[in-house]
Amino acid sequence: MSSKTIVMFSGELDKAMASMIIANGAAAMGDDVTIFFTFWGLNVLRKAQKIKVKKEFMEKMFGWMMPRGAEKLGLSKMNFGGAGAVMMKSMMKKKRVASLPYLIEQAQEMGVKMIACTMSMDVMGIKKEELIDGVELAGVASYLGEADGSNVNLFI
Amino acid sequence: MSSKTIVMFSGELDKAMASMIIANGAAAMGDDVTIFFTFWGLNVLRKAQKIKVKKEFMEKMFGWMMPRGAEKLGLSKMNFGGAGAVMMKSMMKKKRVASLPYLIEQAQEMGVKMIACTMSMDVMGIKKEELIDGVELAGVASYLGEADGSNVNLFI
Amino acid sequence: MSSKTIVMFSGELDKAMASMIIANGAAAMGDDVTIFFTFWGLNVLRKAQKIKVKKEFMEKMFGWMMPRGAEKLGLSKMNFGGAGAVMMKSMMKKKRVASLPYLIEQAQEMGVKMIACTMSMDVMGIKKEELIDGVELAGVASYLGEADGSNVNLFI
Repeated sequence: MSSKTIVMFSGELDKAMASMIIANGAAAMGDDVTIFFTFWGLNVLRKAQKIKVKKEFMEKMFGWMMPRGAEKLGLSKMNFGGAGAVMMKSMMKKKRVASLPYLIEQAQEMGVKMIACTMSMDVMGIKKEELIDGVELAGVASYLGEADGSNVNLFI
Repeated sequence: MSSKTIVMFSGELDKAMASMIIANGAAAMGDDVTIFFTFWGLNVLRKAQKIKVKKEFMEKMFGWMMPRGAEKLGLSKMNFGGAGAVMMKSMMKKKRVASLPYLIEQAQEMGVKMIACTMSMDVMGIKKEELIDGVELAGVASYLGEADGSNVNLFI
Repeated sequence: MSSKTIVMFSGELDKAMASMIIANGAAAMGDDVTIFFTFWGLNVLRKAQKIKVKKEFMEKMFGWMMPRGAEKLGLSKMNFGGAGAVMMKSMMKKKRVASLPYLIEQAQEMGVKMIACTMSMDVMGIKKEELIDGVELAGVASYLGEADGSNVNLFI
């Protein structure tokens, strides 16, 4: 048994799909997997519904402009204002590829550790209440500790 | 001797160049190198000519919109509708830096294993006949197996 | 004590921040850290002031179009012509997160090795005089040597 870490920096549908497919594949093979969600990657973990939390003006603006959760993410290219993401999801459904929300659920069931970066949360004004359940909070030292004990470390 | 893996997710000229330069450098030093082409990265492996294959409507649309092969890729930034890529290629030629198609050929001659991700091919509707010769097909389990035995694993 | 390498390919504020935070965190824990700046990543190392160097026409054009140094970088998304970067920097300041120029200084003080990729410098027409002090120059073989001896290798 070995360990894997992924830094999920980019909050796009396609990159999040790639992360979760690698993470879940490794977990299915018995590996310990930890995903650190940082910067735009935090959007993957946001709840779909609007959560009432106290925010400063700039934090609110960031919150409005960024996609709220796995269902709302765009593609890293050919997104065309969301049309590309819709097309990709329709292709995935047709080919019976699991959706991103399902992959996240599956990851949690298999024990993939999902950690939100506290510094990014602070800078972007994302509060714990806005994230899906089962997410831990930690900083870069915690990431480095995990990465040191892992044999595959990816930045996505 | 050690092993290296690269996940080539992004199908852009500059990122593909970086991947191939690292891969070929490692292969020249005697390493086993495997590159997994997934999502947009599949475009790097497409043949330049149009191949007649049966596709559904959505698959055709994806096929039309995505660049057909290493000669057609854009830059990840400052592409300006392709002008940036033309400029970069002209600079590379002037400085006698090998072109991307040449780097791919060289990689194949040095035994760099090039694998196309079957799930991405399925979702994007890319068929084996559309890919250059010498490419193997495999899934995420195969990637994870290779990555476990490698000392450098990059996601590009 | 262990070693880490980062390939800094993307020259954006957010990705450069992530790189430096990981690098400085590891250096603070006693690790040897090497960052290879390549392609757009070279812009992170450019001096803010215009340096008089002899360049060909195309090299000049690249030089004009690319951001000159850590203060000028945009975000990898939601940049809105620079407004996003300004907003992000203002949020960072408010939350007392170190600025990118400060993180780079700190990295150099902690002995993080910063290497500019000679091939990219050549292609993009960036001269040594244009880069901040304390940067070494090297090629892909040097990167691979460092990566072989490291337990965490990221491509950002």
